[in-house]
Amino acid sequence: MVINSRTIRIEWGDCDPAGIVYFPRYFQYFDMCTNALFERAGLFKPVMLKSYAIAGIPVVDIKANFVTSSRFGEDVTVESSIVKWGNSSFVVQHRLMKDATLAVECFETRVWVARAKDDPEKLEGRPIPSEVRDKFEGSG
Amino acid sequence: MVINSRTIRIEWGDCDPAGIVYFPRYFQYFDMCTNALFERAGLFKPVMLKSYAIAGIPVVDIKANFVTSSRFGEDVTVESSIVKWGNSSFVVQHRLMKDATLAVECFETRVWVARAKDDPEKLEGRPIPSEVRDKFEGSG
Amino acid sequence: MVINSRTIRIEWGDCDPAGIVYFPRYFQYFDMCTNALFERAGLFKPVMLKSYAIAGIPVVDIKANFVTSSRFGEDVTVESSIVKWGNSSFVVQHRLMKDATLAVECFETRVWVARAKDDPEKLEGRPIPSEVRDKFEGSG
Amino acid sequence: MVINSRTIRIEWGDCDPAGIVYFPRYFQYFDMCTNALFERAGLFKPVMLKSYAIAGIPVVDIKANFVTSSRFGEDVTVESSIVKWGNSSFVVQHRLMKDATLAVECFETRVWVARAKDDPEKLEGRPIPSEVRDKFEGSG
Repeated sequence: MVINSRTIRIEWGDCDPAGIVYFPRYFQYFDMCTNALFERAGLFKPVMLKSYAIAGIPVVDIKANFVTSSRFGEDVTVESSIVKWGNSSFVVQHRLMKDATLAVECFETRVWVARAKDDPEKLEGRPIPSEVRDKFEGSG
Repeated sequence: MVINSRTIRIEWGDCDPAGIVYFPRYFQYFDMCTNALFERAGLFKPVMLKSYAIAGIPVVDIKANFVTSSRFGEDVTVESSIVKWGNSSFVVQHRLMKDATLAVECFETRVWVARAKDDPEKLEGRPIPSEVRDKFEGSG
Repeated sequence: MVINSRTIRIEWGDCDPAGIVYFPRYFQYFDMCTNALFERAGLFKPVMLKSYAIAGIPVVDIKANFVTSSRFGEDVTVESSIVKWGNSSFVVQHRLMKDATLAVECFETRVWVARAKDDPEKLEGRPIPSEVRDKFEGSG
Repeated sequence: MVINSRTIRIEWGDCDPAGIVYFPRYFQYFDMCTNALFERAGLFKPVMLKSYAIAGIPVVDIKANFVTSSRFGEDVTVESSIVKWGNSSFVVQHRLMKDATLAVECFETRVWVARAKDDPEKLEGRPIPSEVRDKFEGSG
């Protein structure tokens, strides 16, 4: 199973007047980490969107648990992997670690979507190609 | 029970290359709506932080379900209320409506925190004053 | 000349650990205000992009002067107008006022761009239709 | 003179519906780069704020020129240095390069500020310690 690990520096602009990460920023981190996970699996998103003619992999459901807050200047590590596959959806787990302790855990359910033929503004779920799934499940 | 309703214009900068709201932005909307809900209950956050000597009401747990995407230029309405009270925590429900249909639903669990006396960088849960809770539960 | 005035509540998530607006957020405010100015002139951006077949009105040059900082919970007012017209570009002035005092002034130079015919990823300046300019210059 | 160079991946959430970087995000990049420049000079901002008892180094004046737009998935490099020193202010130049070509240039004027003794919400300029300036000007 492909697991990607990425170190993130907590930036000044990610923190709020209480001095801790403003929680919506974590979801930006996790979105970057999902894209980095795909890139690690050989699916660089800008290329993937074109090769598979999809509009994106939007989140339809999300859960997160904030155990410990983080502050400006800290370096945290996010470990990301896909923990469940459906026909047109999949679940990404992100574990944000601070000094080897779990600080935030998040589960994103995402859908493989394309633009509807009759209405380019409408996004529709599509079956995930088996070769995409294989890239994450390989023994490599 | 106090319910606050707030109309939000989806801005250009909230949308991604797929033309829909970039999902972390919804959590900024919801955070604004929680603050607006407190203000509606008579607790304007900048004043509340000082009067109750707290550092904030950070989110410790969150769940969201994205039913329909929204696009630049649309006006959506968020209905917010507190649906559960604990000793030092509470749950805010947000229902983002688009043309009277539920587009996003979110539950935020937040904690009433103050800075620890021995370490101002440490945030600790504190019992929520009953008068705070009363402002949301009143028959008004 | 069309002038648009918009009140903005400074939100928690717009402020940094120093307790003041994180300066990149001002540019989001100003971008919203430019779009609101166009809407006020009868050019609602999502519709305008389609009717004139343009990709956007990106900023090519910007200057800003931050006189006074603003804090969470304050309400500021931004007055926006177009102060100069070129062939394919124009300059928007924003004056962010706090209690009738200028707090931030910004000048954005923006270009009217369409996608190049031979390369949809390339954006090219196009002459601004005179009817667009007329909507801002009218005696109304 | 200390010059810092930092590579930035353009993220999905930094881009707008036109598919290019939403311009306020550039200012977040530049703010990160100013902090990275200080760190390179031996002044890690979270530590510097405490050791010098300052509240921050807010921007009071900014100019930027956007030559070429950037898109999701591109890697750009920002070269940052301090090009001018005043008594309590300094000017940071950022040059965002794409394939060895200048894509965005920015000049930030920042002030060394502390909280006023009589009003902690008021920020006041203070003389920049000569040892701070020396760290950037050294022959190293």
